[in-house]
Amino acid sequence: MSSPKSSPKSSIDKRLASLRSTLKTQRLDGYVVPSSDAHQSEYVGAPWRRREFISGFSGSAGTFACTLDQAGLWTDARYWTQGQQQLQGTSVALFRSGAPHVPDWQDWLVKNLAKGSRVGLNGSLFSIDQYTALEKTLTQAGLQLITVDQDPIDGVWGHDRPELPSTPVRIHPQTFAGESVDEKLGRLRQRFKEEKVQGLLVTALDEIAWLLNLRGNDVEFNPVFYAYLWVGETLVKVFTDTSKISADIRAHLGSQFQWAPYGDFMGFLATLPKSQPLWVDPTTINAAIGKTLGDYSLKTYEQPSPIPGWKSVKNAAELNGMAQAHRQDGVALVKFLRWIKEHPNVDQLDEISVEVQLEKFRKLNTDYIGPSFATIAGFGPNGALPHYRATRESNLKLKSPGILLLDSGGQYVQGTTDITRTIVLSRGGAGDVRAQQDSLAQPKKIYTLVLKCHLQLARTQFPPGTLGLQLDAIARQPLWQHGLTYGHGTGHGVGAALCVHEGPFSLSTRRNFHPIQIGNVLSNEPACYFEGDFGVRIENLVSVTSRASSGPTPFLGFDDLTLCPYDRDLIDLEMLHREEISQVDRYHERVVAELSSQLKDQDLDFLKKVCRPLQGP
Amino acid sequence: MSSPKSSPKSSIDKRLASLRSTLKTQRLDGYVVPSSDAHQSEYVGAPWRRREFISGFSGSAGTFACTLDQAGLWTDARYWTQGQQQLQGTSVALFRSGAPHVPDWQDWLVKNLAKGSRVGLNGSLFSIDQYTALEKTLTQAGLQLITVDQDPIDGVWGHDRPELPSTPVRIHPQTFAGESVDEKLGRLRQRFKEEKVQGLLVTALDEIAWLLNLRGNDVEFNPVFYAYLWVGETLVKVFTDTSKISADIRAHLGSQFQWAPYGDFMGFLATLPKSQPLWVDPTTINAAIGKTLGDYSLKTYEQPSPIPGWKSVKNAAELNGMAQAHRQDGVALVKFLRWIKEHPNVDQLDEISVEVQLEKFRKLNTDYIGPSFATIAGFGPNGALPHYRATRESNLKLKSPGILLLDSGGQYVQGTTDITRTIVLSRGGAGDVRAQQDSLAQPKKIYTLVLKCHLQLARTQFPPGTLGLQLDAIARQPLWQHGLTYGHGTGHGVGAALCVHEGPFSLSTRRNFHPIQIGNVLSNEPACYFEGDFGVRIENLVSVTSRASSGPTPFLGFDDLTLCPYDRDLIDLEMLHREEISQVDRYHERVVAELSSQLKDQDLDFLKKVCRPLQGP
Repeated sequence: MSSPKSSPKSSIDKRLASLRSTLKTQRLDGYVVPSSDAHQSEYVGAPWRRREFISGFSGSAGTFACTLDQAGLWTDARYWTQGQQQLQGTSVALFRSGAPHVPDWQDWLVKNLAKGSRVGLNGSLFSIDQYTALEKTLTQAGLQLITVDQDPIDGVWGHDRPELPSTPVRIHPQTFAGESVDEKLGRLRQRFKEEKVQGLLVTALDEIAWLLNLRGNDVEFNPVFYAYLWVGETLVKVFTDTSKISADIRAHLGSQFQWAPYGDFMGFLATLPKSQPLWVDPTTINAAIGKTLGDYSLKTYEQPSPIPGWKSVKNAAELNGMAQAHRQDGVALVKFLRWIKEHPNVDQLDEISVEVQLEKFRKLNTDYIGPSFATIAGFGPNGALPHYRATRESNLKLKSPGILLLDSGGQYVQGTTDITRTIVLSRGGAGDVRAQQDSLAQPKKIYTLVLKCHLQLARTQFPPGTLGLQLDAIARQPLWQHGLTYGHGTGHGVGAALCVHEGPFSLSTRRNFHPIQIGNVLSNEPACYFEGDFGVRIENLVSVTSRASSGPTPFLGFDDLTLCPYDRDLIDLEMLHREEISQVDRYHERVVAELSSQLKDQDLDFLKKVCRPLQGP
Repeated sequence: MSSPKSSPKSSIDKRLASLRSTLKTQRLDGYVVPSSDAHQSEYVGAPWRRREFISGFSGSAGTFACTLDQAGLWTDARYWTQGQQQLQGTSVALFRSGAPHVPDWQDWLVKNLAKGSRVGLNGSLFSIDQYTALEKTLTQAGLQLITVDQDPIDGVWGHDRPELPSTPVRIHPQTFAGESVDEKLGRLRQRFKEEKVQGLLVTALDEIAWLLNLRGNDVEFNPVFYAYLWVGETLVKVFTDTSKISADIRAHLGSQFQWAPYGDFMGFLATLPKSQPLWVDPTTINAAIGKTLGDYSLKTYEQPSPIPGWKSVKNAAELNGMAQAHRQDGVALVKFLRWIKEHPNVDQLDEISVEVQLEKFRKLNTDYIGPSFATIAGFGPNGALPHYRATRESNLKLKSPGILLLDSGGQYVQGTTDITRTIVLSRGGAGDVRAQQDSLAQPKKIYTLVLKCHLQLARTQFPPGTLGLQLDAIARQPLWQHGLTYGHGTGHGVGAALCVHEGPFSLSTRRNFHPIQIGNVLSNEPACYFEGDFGVRIENLVSVTSRASSGPTPFLGFDDLTLCPYDRDLIDLEMLHREEISQVDRYHERVVAELSSQLKDQDLDFLKKVCRPLQGP
């Protein structure tokens, strides 16, 4: 996949100057560039990395805003340090979203622009809901919101702007999908009858991939392809680069499917009948589409689509595929752990060599496709950056004793993985760790606290209707007891052979009212960071299953999908209750049972050694 | 205080028949009666107990609805069993709100009435928000909502309907209020400027009592008095039975206060200037007032009032008063515990004699005013009814060994208490309990689980912004682990020498977005009920204070206000972690330290004995 050209700091200010001269010709006093593409994707294809192009900030979340003499980049706690590093030396100021007294970019624009000023944006990069809220805020504050027809960033980018990707699309086999396209369309059309709509617009790329049992490769890490979709009562129309669609795929989907170029979508909307409303999800459909529907006087039914909820409830085949992917991933991780824990000289390694070696072990699995996100291999202080990605400039050499945080995941034919392990590095193994008691006392205490959080969530049972907001608090409680917390959520949904982040629920302090349901797959990743020192995060993926109940209320619980030992060298046994110790032992027993047949010799010996009972010899 | 006449089951159907004949003359096809009064009170004065009068159901929460041939009473899990008992033999059906497949009363009316039917209600008994939502629901479903000018229940009640109470009003001294009326009015008027309003209507009785540093006795258990209040920029006008207002009170409040009869309030609204908007809290101001404001073309600013939030943050004087009240209450409780635990023959006692004896011990405190709610003394199966109140019919004899749940509270001059203890009764003391291991194994397990929940919440630390919804989950987690839960919230706000239930926050699964703040006082009362067998609830009141933090995030925590030992005879030490055992021991040490000076002889010996270390001899 092509990536935007690297952006040396000096060139950022040139781009800004060029943007501002375009803004002036369009009589705009400010401009806003979010991270998104026209599909509200979290990770976006190369031609949509406009926010990165104009600001130099490469994190997955952030918003750029400028006036004719000032510019800022807003990003959340995960990216504060990365933002600081990447914006240094440019005229773009970093705004730490969520920190006390930091204005959001809306407030900043209001403060820095005179009443009546015109603020431009590209309507295709905001959902209808986002746009509506934004318009209300800015209008009430006396600013005008102007949607541009042509994004001025593209003019600045010019010929260097990458093309739309055109990688092949493949069929996601029924063995792993577990439900046919016809069955999924049947569920949807049943809802059309109930809601009295003529059909549904689908533009979120993972929703399209899920609904059509297709996978693509247009976006780094995410097996999706750029397309728009119209599902009517009898017809399905797909707007995509049709050269990617093989005869096999056309046969797979059958005659009710029509295929058209990606660029034809907006024009197609004019051809829809005006008699019955169309279902438009205002949380995913972009405001440019919303405006076009209005221009064509089409009636809309604005309600959340049922697809994200359906997609988040995995069927037996999907769960089986996820389990298969996790067994393969576990084998790669165990090989990696032995490699680094028994490495004769870790001081010769660095963060990038860790990333490269882990990828080598993953590639030994024949069903491995590629990483499910950019590997985070953060040593020492870099481990305190929750979404760090090692670059040549930031790359730290490893040192023993020291703490390495490794968050990575794989896309497999069968499913998607996402795992974080925090590891103590030592030249002489566990004996060396014991010899370093003093310098490791704090990391061991923190690792054990984070492990307590992780174990507490893993064993928690809860009644139907429980929200991620409630489970997030249960996970944080052991850290809270020590006056500590972490600045990100505890868990996110994970797609089945799809995006590593998906909705509609969230285990975080967000006000998200989608309860956790049987069949959901999500991450359990509490953490604790000490800026400039080290970070600890422990992450397994879990699936939600039913549990025995002692009363009239049914109960749900979590089953671990991830199979990989914790780092016993970092566990302070004094801080664990009996039930926590036996919880770790039971998990380690299971890891050995599930992975042993695929490991041999020294790898198998290593696995058995690190998975022996915690209180054993 | 007068109470509605007792309602034998046969008379309920007569009242219903009489109501329906009135409905017919007013061309109404249905009628709805909530629990409320015109002030949205939880506990209401005698003339407002219309829902109890028409249905016979005396619980504090429930809604009656009827058509011309059917009638129902909707109440939540706390009252399901009580509802079943009280409605038996009448034509009023019980609807268990919150149980699966049980329609709410709105759905029930829609299902049982033809389109276009007219549903009546008394607009003064619904808040503006409730009325607006209700009107939308019923109108969309094809029904008409009719607000009656004269409540037809009153016609059925006739001369038996009690008068408005006219008990004296007293000054709540500055020593315990901690903030003068002028200071409170100053805060409010500062907000008037910010919100650009001419003043605020206040109708919630506890808000009026708090703002004016006055207390009354018009409603059972709650030290409030019936009044409406208008706070303007310079003037305060109180509408109440002016005969209750002494010269002292008039002097206390000063010349900016005007006094008028309670009944003059609606007419007064016509005299307000129409230039500037008035602040109207749509969650507390009733729909009849809302309609009148509209009729008079008065501009309103509809936003929640700041008073509930201010009232919930107790100042140092209020917290000190609450602590004083709890020391007095603790002394009474310890005397009571010795009386029942060392009683030579508990089998001669019953639930009512328990309630009477506890009240006798409380009355030994000179500052004791009366109960803060109806004492719940539930033995065995009656303990499984969360809001049980013993009546002559339900009154159970005590038996040893057996489980008594005792939830009670007091109004003191200084503050308000609310405590629940669950007690095992035994003829021969702890030795007898040990001899009864088998029959008490289940109660001990459940008591210890509930205690774990109670202790977990008590020791929880949490960052600012944490919601009751999150803390509620942390409290439930130990029970959830055993597939158990309880059908009510974990905690409620408590007034300082005011109502035992107050907002604006809630520790429950409700979507309440008022975070828990420093100075809040609330209950910590997890529970577990086994219908037909026994119930366990353990409740302390706690105040919210700041805690040490190990990172950049500040932390809050809870300090116990309640001073009374747990029942060590019901604790299964095997189920407690070390930290839980030392948490109980530390609490018991503090109870001894705070109460010893006010106890002597056998009471003091008893206290020391039941508070000795759990793992001691």
